[in-house]
Amino acid sequence: MRRDSQETRQSIFDAATAEFAEHGIAGARVDRIATSARANKQLIYVHFGSKRKLFEAVVAEHVRRFMEAVPFDAAGLPEWVGNAYDFFAAHPEVAQLGAWHALEPGESEHRIAAIEDAIAHRTRAIRRAQAQGIVDSSVGPVELLAIVNALARTWVLAPPERNPPSGPDSRSVKRRRTAVVETTRRLVTPAAKPAAEHA
Amino acid sequence: MRRDSQETRQSIFDAATAEFAEHGIAGARVDRIATSARANKQLIYVHFGSKRKLFEAVVAEHVRRFMEAVPFDAAGLPEWVGNAYDFFAAHPEVAQLGAWHALEPGESEHRIAAIEDAIAHRTRAIRRAQAQGIVDSSVGPVELLAIVNALARTWVLAPPERNPPSGPDSRSVKRRRTAVVETTRRLVTPAAKPAAEHA
Repeated sequence: MRRDSQETRQSIFDAATAEFAEHGIAGARVDRIATSARANKQLIYVHFGSKRKLFEAVVAEHVRRFMEAVPFDAAGLPEWVGNAYDFFAAHPEVAQLGAWHALEPGESEHRIAAIEDAIAHRTRAIRRAQAQGIVDSSVGPVELLAIVNALARTWVLAPPERNPPSGPDSRSVKRRRTAVVETTRRLVTPAAKPAAEHA
Repeated sequence: MRRDSQETRQSIFDAATAEFAEHGIAGARVDRIATSARANKQLIYVHFGSKRKLFEAVVAEHVRRFMEAVPFDAAGLPEWVGNAYDFFAAHPEVAQLGAWHALEPGESEHRIAAIEDAIAHRTRAIRRAQAQGIVDSSVGPVELLAIVNALARTWVLAPPERNPPSGPDSRSVKRRRTAVVETTRRLVTPAAKPAAEHA
C-alpha cells in the first residue's frame, strides 16, 4: 500500500465494478477484485465490511454518478430517455450491475437506499408534471417511470441475437436512440395533442 | 430409471428450467438438476451433450411454447404485448432464462437458432404491417420489435426496489399491464390518427 487512500478507493471501485458486472454478486470474488485493484483483500473488508456491502456501495455510487450525468427531467422525458440511452451505451457495466441486482435470487431482501430514493424522487416529479398537464396522465407515474427506464436499457440487456456478431454499427445505434426517444415522446405527449404532430 | 423416457425428459426439462432460472448458466449445476429430476447425471449428458447444450435446448423449447401460447400478431401489437406481459408474469422463469443469456459473459458467441428465427419471422411480419399502413412506421421494424419485447418484460427484470417487500398487489399488476398496452398502442398507431383517440 504505497498509494494514498483516495486512489486506492478508486481502484477498488473500478475493479469491483468490472468484477460484479461480469460475474454478478454470487459469482464475484473479492480476491480477484483485490488483485485487479492491486489492493489488500483484508483492506477491502476493512473498508466495506463484506462483498455484499461492497456491491451496494458500488451500485450507490453509480446511481449518484448517473443522476449527476443525466439529470432527471420529468418535463422533458423523451430527451432524458435519449441521454440515459447514451449513458448506458457508454457504460453498459452500470446497466449490468442493475440487471444482476434484479435477477439474482434473494436480491429482493437487499433493497438499496440510493435506488429507492431515486425512484421516490422521480415518481414525485412525474406526478407533479402530470398534475400540471405537461406529461400525459393516461399511465400513472410509478408505471411510467418503470417504462422509461426499461426503454433506455432496451438493448443493453437484449439477447445477443438482437445484434450482429460484430456488434451494432453506428447507424443502428442511432436508430435505436431515435426509437426510444420517439416511443417516449408518444407516451408522454398529453392526449389533447395529436400523436401525428411532428412540429 | 423406472419411468418412461418421455416423463424423464419432462422432469429434466422442468428441473433444468428452475436451476438455470435461479443460478444462470455458469452457476447451474447438472448434478443438482439430476437430483431434482430424479434422473441419472450421465443420462443427461447422453441426452443433451453438455450443460451448455441443455441450456440451449431448454431455451429453444420455451421459445416454442411462448410462440404457441402468445401467437405473434403484428396487426395487434398492443394486445400481443398485454398477452406477453401475462405470460411472463405467470412464467417469470422464462424471462429470467433470457436475461441470463443476455447478461452472462461470452453469450454473444452462443446464438440460439430458435431466437434468431423468431426475431426474423416477427421482423418480417412488422415490416409487412407497416407497408400496409396498419402499423405506424416512424420506428423501424427491428427497433420496434426489440421495444415491444422490452415493454412486455419491464417488471420481470426490474430491480427489487420497484416492488413493495410483499410483492405487487393485484391492482398494481393490472395497472402495469394497462401501461404497457397503452405505451404500445401509442407507438404503433399510425401517425395520421390522433393519439388522443380512445374510441
